[in-house]
Amino acid sequence: MRELGLANTKKRYELFSTLELQSVAMIEAELLKQARNYFELNGFTEVITPHITRATGSCENMMTVFTLNYFEQMGYLAQTGQLYLESMVPSLGKVFCIGPSFRAEPDADERHLTEFTLMEIELPCNLDELIVHIEKLLCHMIKGVLQNKQKELEILHVNQERLRSVKRPFNRITYTEAVEILSDQGVKWGDDLKSRHEKFLAEYFGNKPLFITHFPEEIKFFNMKTNEDNPRVVNSTDLILPGVGEAVGAAEREYEYEKILEKLKKSRMLKQLEEIDGSINDFDWYLDFYKKFGGQPHAGFGMGMTRVNQFVFGFNDIRTCTVFPLNRESLI
Amino acid sequence: MRELGLANTKKRYELFSTLELQSVAMIEAELLKQARNYFELNGFTEVITPHITRATGSCENMMTVFTLNYFEQMGYLAQTGQLYLESMVPSLGKVFCIGPSFRAEPDADERHLTEFTLMEIELPCNLDELIVHIEKLLCHMIKGVLQNKQKELEILHVNQERLRSVKRPFNRITYTEAVEILSDQGVKWGDDLKSRHEKFLAEYFGNKPLFITHFPEEIKFFNMKTNEDNPRVVNSTDLILPGVGEAVGAAEREYEYEKILEKLKKSRMLKQLEEIDGSINDFDWYLDFYKKFGGQPHAGFGMGMTRVNQFVFGFNDIRTCTVFPLNRESLI
Repeated sequence: MRELGLANTKKRYELFSTLELQSVAMIEAELLKQARNYFELNGFTEVITPHITRATGSCENMMTVFTLNYFEQMGYLAQTGQLYLESMVPSLGKVFCIGPSFRAEPDADERHLTEFTLMEIELPCNLDELIVHIEKLLCHMIKGVLQNKQKELEILHVNQERLRSVKRPFNRITYTEAVEILSDQGVKWGDDLKSRHEKFLAEYFGNKPLFITHFPEEIKFFNMKTNEDNPRVVNSTDLILPGVGEAVGAAEREYEYEKILEKLKKSRMLKQLEEIDGSINDFDWYLDFYKKFGGQPHAGFGMGMTRVNQFVFGFNDIRTCTVFPLNRESLI
Repeated sequence: MRELGLANTKKRYELFSTLELQSVAMIEAELLKQARNYFELNGFTEVITPHITRATGSCENMMTVFTLNYFEQMGYLAQTGQLYLESMVPSLGKVFCIGPSFRAEPDADERHLTEFTLMEIELPCNLDELIVHIEKLLCHMIKGVLQNKQKELEILHVNQERLRSVKRPFNRITYTEAVEILSDQGVKWGDDLKSRHEKFLAEYFGNKPLFITHFPEEIKFFNMKTNEDNPRVVNSTDLILPGVGEAVGAAEREYEYEKILEKLKKSRMLKQLEEIDGSINDFDWYLDFYKKFGGQPHAGFGMGMTRVNQFVFGFNDIRTCTVFPLNRESLI
């Protein structure tokens, strides 16, 4: 068993001195370092985004947001810095942030964490250019680990051939094509893809990273840009990593005030927000910004670091992939 | 007025497109980049520490910790990653983390934020060696900004001579000497120094960065190492930046189980924790780690990034020193 006891969260401290957890820590650090190096080489500016937020710090699923009493106001633990980053694109251009993302996932299992490191970028570009950034970034991170963390990869018995075979361009299908492939598994157009579907597709396409593009508008974050030729879909992509599932969510963003407002009003997110007694007022600053200053075409993504780690290690259990994996049972 | 409207948190979005806030953002990013560069050059490994924690994620003052309902358990928003970093020193050696630190500070004014970026390191070394790291790190950060962010420094009308004059070694006095200097202001041995005292001292010593060392044990974090010659004080230092106050808290750490347990039991922190219905059980993992595996001599510090920004800018108001300053009134 390659993963040893690394999934143990009950007495995590017993693992701290093992060569295996040291190797996990050192490879995780190298991946982060290489990611930042990529951002520097490509002219991105780091922005410090807030981690206690209004609903503008939530992303797809308001049902998994941690809330807290913030001086008698409702505060949310940030799931994303996206809208904050977006608001800096007109002045700073290419921006990124790296920090904790919180999800109130009640399942303490091999797939769920309540906190993980999220890397996000926003920049003036379109979906195709964004996809190139995702590919180059991931390749840059993996190359750095192969070059600098040989010993640690060996300690974790990582199949390095598998990592060396990651080359751009990655495979790329549309959501509609994905649904066709998955139709005998009962998936219909408009359904969200589940983790097992993502894993099936990655395997189907040769166990390599796979982009799925142009998802239906209704199942994605409200401000993803509507496709001009087919208004039922948005200019978005998810990157599926084999054995892991979705590791990156990416899209062009709406930047015109009226469109943003209209899409927010009819979004699943706003309905969920209202169900937990929140309101659209949380979006005032964001809406006012676009109303007053306008925006410009831009796009961005969020990359879940722990899932990238998992892909690099080739481990089955997310709890083995970071030093302090946090879930319902592992508060430390 | 150099600081312009940068302290405005009511309609922060109105500042996003100003040259001044862009310059703040770019200098903040440069300082972070240079800090990481220093850590890389000196062989530190980044560790991802948790941000929802047990009481082991709190530091000096349990009264300013944000709490949340973490699946019917008490969760705290991390104020520090120190104890988590410390637990990785035996296996990884020099380690660092950079991330948000949360303080439930009710005052929304020029001195308080509820979230700021904290840089922390831990490594096998003593207080003198640690002080050299603090000096070199700060000089490295400032040098990078002077080299790479000329235009932005000019936009903010920063006095660059002041920054160029920051050279190591910094001035260094003991807490006991500080109290003597402050005695006509009513400060007695054993008192904590207030912000106005820190500013007075920095001015008294020529408006330069100033280390104050060897604080009384009772007013500092429980695991700071007791001085062998004078058991009333600990081997600690605060770095005071002129016009700003404390920007770094640093110390050697206790690493022997019995001493840690004894100091924790008599600490102000544990009393405060028990007052908010917490218990020493939160420290089980930390105590068990040292009981089972032992530790080794080590030391570390936390550097408040926003205060370093403030020193670099020479601004009076902390709200002017980061893109999204968070306080009681500015939830965004």
